[in-house]
Amino acid sequence: MSALANDTLLRALSREPTQYAPVWLMRQAGRYLPEYAATRARAGSFLALAKSPALATEVTLQPLERYPLDAAILFSDILTVPDAMGLGLYFAEGEGPRFERPLRDEAAVRALAVPDPATELRYVLDAVREIRRALGGRVPLIGFSGSPYTLACYMIEGSGSFDWRTVKAMLYARPELLHRILDVNTRAVTAYLNAQIEAGVQAVMLFDTWGGALSAAAYESFSLAYSRKVLGGLTKTRDDRRVPSILFTKGGGQWLEAMAASGCDAIGLDWTTDAQDARRRVGTRVALQGNLDPAALFAPAVKVRAEVRRVLDAFGAAPGHVFNLGHGISRHTPPDSVAELVDEVHTYSRTQRKLAH
Amino acid sequence: MSALANDTLLRALSREPTQYAPVWLMRQAGRYLPEYAATRARAGSFLALAKSPALATEVTLQPLERYPLDAAILFSDILTVPDAMGLGLYFAEGEGPRFERPLRDEAAVRALAVPDPATELRYVLDAVREIRRALGGRVPLIGFSGSPYTLACYMIEGSGSFDWRTVKAMLYARPELLHRILDVNTRAVTAYLNAQIEAGVQAVMLFDTWGGALSAAAYESFSLAYSRKVLGGLTKTRDDRRVPSILFTKGGGQWLEAMAASGCDAIGLDWTTDAQDARRRVGTRVALQGNLDPAALFAPAVKVRAEVRRVLDAFGAAPGHVFNLGHGISRHTPPDSVAELVDEVHTYSRTQRKLAH
Repeated sequence: MSALANDTLLRALSREPTQYAPVWLMRQAGRYLPEYAATRARAGSFLALAKSPALATEVTLQPLERYPLDAAILFSDILTVPDAMGLGLYFAEGEGPRFERPLRDEAAVRALAVPDPATELRYVLDAVREIRRALGGRVPLIGFSGSPYTLACYMIEGSGSFDWRTVKAMLYARPELLHRILDVNTRAVTAYLNAQIEAGVQAVMLFDTWGGALSAAAYESFSLAYSRKVLGGLTKTRDDRRVPSILFTKGGGQWLEAMAASGCDAIGLDWTTDAQDARRRVGTRVALQGNLDPAALFAPAVKVRAEVRRVLDAFGAAPGHVFNLGHGISRHTPPDSVAELVDEVHTYSRTQRKLAH
Repeated sequence: MSALANDTLLRALSREPTQYAPVWLMRQAGRYLPEYAATRARAGSFLALAKSPALATEVTLQPLERYPLDAAILFSDILTVPDAMGLGLYFAEGEGPRFERPLRDEAAVRALAVPDPATELRYVLDAVREIRRALGGRVPLIGFSGSPYTLACYMIEGSGSFDWRTVKAMLYARPELLHRILDVNTRAVTAYLNAQIEAGVQAVMLFDTWGGALSAAAYESFSLAYSRKVLGGLTKTRDDRRVPSILFTKGGGQWLEAMAASGCDAIGLDWTTDAQDARRRVGTRVALQGNLDPAALFAPAVKVRAEVRRVLDAFGAAPGHVFNLGHGISRHTPPDSVAELVDEVHTYSRTQRKLAH
């Protein structure tokens, strides 16, 4: 493995000083890029793309060819683990993910088992190895998984939902059944992320996309408690370097203090959270990642840059900020807006840090 | 007008001591009740039902016949104001509200005018008068409107949206155009709520359903600033009694301090906010309303009651709590669960208050 030419992301995640704020974007390899659409068309489907190490490598690197981003993120899906459990992940065109065999009875819950990443998720690990080779040490590679609770949401509901009624009904009526699923998911996600680290990812992110739809009490018991176990079970260093972890709970802005004590190195903030307030609340315990509203990229260049500066001003020049959007980039984003964003992050944050000295 | 037999709600909203926590439910007159479904079938459509003062009165009173609720809420829609502006509200079966003529260009924005409630929203005021007569002073009647920002969301997007892309694009690219719409909406909502008060509603609620999808900075400028103006322009007393106002921002748990300083008498909390934490943050400036997860009503009776007690324990026995759900009741709710909820709120909160003395 070659040494990292640009380790700004890893240093910022460890709250070490950097010359500028590193930047990457959630879903940066995605549908807003015409070259992505072309590769996906060749693959035939999103899932065929995600399951081909060669094509996953190709799309993972596409945004890096366009923009001077400070990290690559593995092209994959948050739901690979339940797919490997045998639930049958598929995507209906124009809709979100679905499972052919959602957990509909107790027998299905009892039959759930932790998949072996080395065999049942080998395509992901092959992709990680191939991406690392292709990157040649330019920037670090981030691996990821859905959180135990977010996986359970789709596994039980069978698809996305505006109110997660089936999941919530189980939570309130049969909590012990949900805990059983979450326990299996926790062991599966931990093994999966450790296998990604072993294969070469240099940071990991846990996407708790739906934890924010829980009550405060339920968030602690059914989401954060299990994310904490995953974080506690992760391989901490590889090649003598810390492998930092990022916990992102969409809609979790009310629970930052608890998230900061979960064992993660960084918290991902969605765009509804004021960054200055977040920093005041979590102190220097963790790095912060975020949090531009993805919709700001629909504005003209001069306004994109103004919004970027507003976010950078809110975070300030202190160590421990990774610039990102507050949610995945929209497929309708003009690619030129991303160029403006990345340039403004690098230029303005460099000035901020100089002025702070 | 007859004197109020039960004014517990009004006293709790004014943070006066009450013998128990008053309770009502957002969307309490709704599809989970078979008698509502029957009336709606007779009306032919949701909108025909809402526009008929006689039928709106009938369904407003239905939940009060079943349960000893402490308030009635006007049966209507949050989008009556833009409908009266000529945008053409309609409901596609199984989907949310839509507008036939959303604001698609600057000419449409410039043509927007404040409707006269006395003529263009007369069916609402007639319903208020008829409901007050039918209630005969049993419990107070709550009026409501969508907030200026939430109205703008539907007016611009033309329907519900998972990311409000058109609205957000305007916000970032053409903020002055959005401010113009919000200014008209603010004057329209203020006049509309004052007309409801004049017609007889005894409390008002401002539903900011989508303000929580904004960044913290945008929430202040595009949502709260206008809600504040509405609240400041409301008739404060009628028949020598304060007409309290409730501000509800779904997903607004991070901004409670700012909401508490907006001029409202009470804040509605969604189920993601911890009530004890909310009370600590806003002090005794405002009453609090909420905040059981509507999904808890899918559980068996004994668990519904346990969740109700958990919410009441979090709020405590101090004056100024109105029990409610954290969001509208689901159409899939078993009606018996509501009976359990209401009984537990009354019984347990009475005990809490006795123990506190």
